Amino acid sequence: MKRIGILTSGGDAPGMNAAVRAVTRVAIANGLEVFGIRYGFAGLVAGDIFPLESEDVAHLINVSGTFLYSARYPEFAEEEGQLAGIEQLKKHGIDAVVVIGGDGSYHGALQLTRHGFNSIGLPGTIDNDIPYTDATIGYDTACMTAMDAIDKIRDTASSHHRVFIVNVMGRNCGDIAMRVGVACGADAIVIPERPYDVEEIANRLKQAQESGKDHGLVVVAEGVMTADQFMAELKKYGDFDVRANVLGHMQRGGTPTVSDRVLASKLGSEAVHLLLEGKGGLAVGIENGKVTSHDILDLFDESHRGDYDLLKLNADLSR
Amino acid sequence: MKRIGILTSGGDAPGMNAAVRAVTRVAIANGLEVFGIRYGFAGLVAGDIFPLESEDVAHLINVSGTFLYSARYPEFAEEEGQLAGIEQLKKHGIDAVVVIGGDGSYHGALQLTRHGFNSIGLPGTIDNDIPYTDATIGYDTACMTAMDAIDKIRDTASSHHRVFIVNVMGRNCGDIAMRVGVACGADAIVIPERPYDVEEIANRLKQAQESGKDHGLVVVAEGVMTADQFMAELKKYGDFDVRANVLGHMQRGGTPTVSDRVLASKLGSEAVHLLLEGKGGLAVGIENGKVTSHDILDLFDESHRGDYDLLKLNADLSR
Amino acid sequence: MKRIGILTSGGDAPGMNAAVRAVTRVAIANGLEVFGIRYGFAGLVAGDIFPLESEDVAHLINVSGTFLYSARYPEFAEEEGQLAGIEQLKKHGIDAVVVIGGDGSYHGALQLTRHGFNSIGLPGTIDNDIPYTDATIGYDTACMTAMDAIDKIRDTASSHHRVFIVNVMGRNCGDIAMRVGVACGADAIVIPERPYDVEEIANRLKQAQESGKDHGLVVVAEGVMTADQFMAELKKYGDFDVRANVLGHMQRGGTPTVSDRVLASKLGSEAVHLLLEGKGGLAVGIENGKVTSHDILDLFDESHRGDYDLLKLNADLSR
Amino acid sequence: MKRIGILTSGGDAPGMNAAVRAVTRVAIANGLEVFGIRYGFAGLVAGDIFPLESEDVAHLINVSGTFLYSARYPEFAEEEGQLAGIEQLKKHGIDAVVVIGGDGSYHGALQLTRHGFNSIGLPGTIDNDIPYTDATIGYDTACMTAMDAIDKIRDTASSHHRVFIVNVMGRNCGDIAMRVGVACGADAIVIPERPYDVEEIANRLKQAQESGKDHGLVVVAEGVMTADQFMAELKKYGDFDVRANVLGHMQRGGTPTVSDRVLASKLGSEAVHLLLEGKGGLAVGIENGKVTSHDILDLFDESHRGDYDLLKLNADLSR
Repeated sequence: MKRIGILTSGGDAPGMNAAVRAVTRVAIANGLEVFGIRYGFAGLVAGDIFPLESEDVAHLINVSGTFLYSARYPEFAEEEGQLAGIEQLKKHGIDAVVVIGGDGSYHGALQLTRHGFNSIGLPGTIDNDIPYTDATIGYDTACMTAMDAIDKIRDTASSHHRVFIVNVMGRNCGDIAMRVGVACGADAIVIPERPYDVEEIANRLKQAQESGKDHGLVVVAEGVMTADQFMAELKKYGDFDVRANVLGHMQRGGTPTVSDRVLASKLGSEAVHLLLEGKGGLAVGIENGKVTSHDILDLFDESHRGDYDLLKLNADLSR
Repeated sequence: MKRIGILTSGGDAPGMNAAVRAVTRVAIANGLEVFGIRYGFAGLVAGDIFPLESEDVAHLINVSGTFLYSARYPEFAEEEGQLAGIEQLKKHGIDAVVVIGGDGSYHGALQLTRHGFNSIGLPGTIDNDIPYTDATIGYDTACMTAMDAIDKIRDTASSHHRVFIVNVMGRNCGDIAMRVGVACGADAIVIPERPYDVEEIANRLKQAQESGKDHGLVVVAEGVMTADQFMAELKKYGDFDVRANVLGHMQRGGTPTVSDRVLASKLGSEAVHLLLEGKGGLAVGIENGKVTSHDILDLFDESHRGDYDLLKLNADLSR
Repeated sequence: MKRIGILTSGGDAPGMNAAVRAVTRVAIANGLEVFGIRYGFAGLVAGDIFPLESEDVAHLINVSGTFLYSARYPEFAEEEGQLAGIEQLKKHGIDAVVVIGGDGSYHGALQLTRHGFNSIGLPGTIDNDIPYTDATIGYDTACMTAMDAIDKIRDTASSHHRVFIVNVMGRNCGDIAMRVGVACGADAIVIPERPYDVEEIANRLKQAQESGKDHGLVVVAEGVMTADQFMAELKKYGDFDVRANVLGHMQRGGTPTVSDRVLASKLGSEAVHLLLEGKGGLAVGIENGKVTSHDILDLFDESHRGDYDLLKLNADLSR
Repeated sequence: MKRIGILTSGGDAPGMNAAVRAVTRVAIANGLEVFGIRYGFAGLVAGDIFPLESEDVAHLINVSGTFLYSARYPEFAEEEGQLAGIEQLKKHGIDAVVVIGGDGSYHGALQLTRHGFNSIGLPGTIDNDIPYTDATIGYDTACMTAMDAIDKIRDTASSHHRVFIVNVMGRNCGDIAMRVGVACGADAIVIPERPYDVEEIANRLKQAQESGKDHGLVVVAEGVMTADQFMAELKKYGDFDVRANVLGHMQRGGTPTVSDRVLASKLGSEAVHLLLEGKGGLAVGIENGKVTSHDILDLFDESHRGDYDLLKLNADLSR
């Protein structure tokens, strides 16, 4: 193996650039050449491929987004798209590929490996919805951004004795909601993976207000419903002075946290080492504090499990 | 004059606490006693009044919101409400009042003055919609919060070559939108005070994309329309990959900026000095870098004028 | 057991307040009464003890420092001091104590347990120098603060092609230096636990500059030497345009990160549950993502082990 | 005039990139060609000059430092250096130059103008020590960075009832110290332009502690003495639990504030418009909220005047 390619795919996440930097530098430190592939699998098929030197990834560790750009490209699920991509790899003499992204990216990495081009998947998504990893690259940063925003919202909620319903991201995964909910002292956390009872939440908010609490906060994962919808539900059970907020796309940006930068660096390094060992079709992750890898096929049979004990903890913590 | 009261009214704004601290400490430094009035004019009428000592306002200069709480209280526009409030002032031996808030607060301050209780209004609102002051307390902080959020949104916009329509606060005033738009390199800024042409904005966005720009950004003041509505308008003129974001209530929170803390301190101090000179019915502000005061009646005849040259400047700056 | 006391001891750390909040609320949720003890063991002996209600710990989860205050009190190592403290516990009817702090705090907790008052230690220190826990409360926040500061320093370093030597905290532990060094793309990381070679670092910096890198960065743990001393050492091996910075006490402050708030909440909750089970003399921690507890005596026989692989990783990442 | 050059000189400041962006885009919008000159006057003489297109300054408005790099170059004070620079301007067909920087930059701009190449100076320095402008580009950001750091220091100061002496930047100008001191609720602010009395400050700190204040803070401008020296002075008058902190070079970095971005944009635009009017030898600034320009020679006869009333205000505000 002499040349590796690297691409980012799916929704962008803070730390993707740090991962690209790690892959590039560790590969070069091990005598490999590195090529960047722009716009994910779309760019692979289109041949939007260029050599990456060590200095090209300078000043990127603290920059969010992905300088390789990302794009959706469902056509890569088809054999035809894959073969077009492989032709490009051959043309550029690329032997192996690192793919950073979410679920869809892993399918692509698996296909490339099946065609004889070892590929490793890295979990790059804010949603933390990937199995066999305790954290995805970007998850911690998204939590921090959401927490900072809700800390600000609480200032104004308290000044007016208001209840706020806040939508956080995560698609069908409640991890951001749970962690941010605990961190912000939410009265209730509502996630897609567990049942919830709006009436009970309404009663809890009423009790809190009666006991003198000067604000209310319900963190609702976007996968459950919109903040507006939840607000409408809540109002069925009481006359609350309530506002709805959708934190939105800012959760995808911002300079990565220490955790995300270190995680991206570790996982990027591991991906290169796996390729150097001649391995492919693997997904890298962090489990119990250790870098691990699993067959991508195994990931499709498994689903991510969140730390649902946080819901019980939060119930005790919110008075 | 021996005793002054202080209250916050209307929407809360970062720096209100810093202003209360300044009023309290400067008053005490000048031999006065200070009473806090909770929940604005509602609390005044209800007699929710308590002595404020110097140490009560410690650790508040960096805290957003208002520890005196705020509330709407339209009843204070009526003579009956005013008389009830004045009874409370008499009961607590309060001779004069400092009112921090927006437009409505000034009406209250004027009524108290007319009833013989000198009152001074301080501009506390993020909207910057008060005449005779270049900046209101909270405006700079709200701009910073909005800018930080949009900086994050731009990361993800660039990764996906997307256009974002972002709603910022300001009610009927476009000042936040203009200043934040320039600071974030918006392609277009849309405010209530000036006409705009969606088709022209659409064309500008198209040209920018064609010339290789990797993102688009339109900052829309909430007083114009919602981001969703603007997005729908925009789509009439092109097939954009566009998302809408409403920054929301986080713009009301967050630790005040240096500017807002210093402004709140200066205006709070001036309010006390005016009362010491036996003056009332005045609104304090900052004009051309200097602390000034005007008859509150004059404010009702005047409207705030923004720095609309920023629109022309921004047109030159966004390619 | 009906009443528990809680105190913070040693250097303060972000998240201590979140831990006090968690202990208080979980205890109350389980039918206990809670008493706060001010100024650590000094306040225990002096009887500076007061009841803590649920609302007393509201608005604290995002506030750094410790509202219970902290103090050094070596006298508690003596039997006399301990007996005086126990007298106060008896006087207030307190059966058990949660102690949040570093090394010294654990000795105190052990002594109280030996005298029949079950006590649980929580790792509250930015230094991350406690055995049997992968992270201490405050460590992640200190890393974020240091990283943010160094990100800013890098801006100016790059503008002038300068080398910066930056001292980060951690006393005799290099964990902050390692994690922040990787996160900031340091050319070299110098920690007390591992040998280092100034000449080699000098050569690496020279090579980087010759290959066009526009800045240099060496992160030096305070336990090694001061940044000024290291700068003097470095200058022996080359004529660098170099500056020394000591980040200082700001690393102890700042609103806690998501990680620290969640960690503090989990460990605080666990401490109460252990007391409810009649246990004492234990230190709580987080290992491999799970909350654990160990006999405090075992901690004295063990020392913290850092993730020293980060040094090798960083060597590959810094070109 | 067809081509203008642009360079940054002296110490870097947040917002310099935003100013370069504004000059570039406004010049292009007015039909000019723009050339970037790297490393200030040193690069001018060395011919390190390259064409700047609109897209080259994209993604720079929020980045601190200067992508044109900066350097000291005392040789430009000599006729020989100036002629060498002018030769380069001729070679590249550059008719006029915008210089962003501090004092020294203005001398260079004046010399170029005298040699027939109209040049305009822009105040780019965190120190705010330039006459005929109320604010320099970078000043507001430096104040925010210093304030944020001191807010964090106060957390730990309060936890341990400590006094902190904090050095802020500003060279011989006390503006950062004054504004940050007021914003952080300092007990005392010590600047080079005004006398101070350490004994009186010591007494104030003692009184504050006796009246129950849980921390002390003295902000000392670096132009007065180091924090360590001040700490030694202070200890002559009492047995304080005191720590010294030097905030250091982080004050030069960080994403520019809204104020600095807007200021840089306005002043950069004005510089181009002055050149288009055939003017040179002028320094642009902001006075009383309006963009102004003055003969650079006048700046040398004048010195910056700070808002020294802030010292009196702060004395009233700190109890």
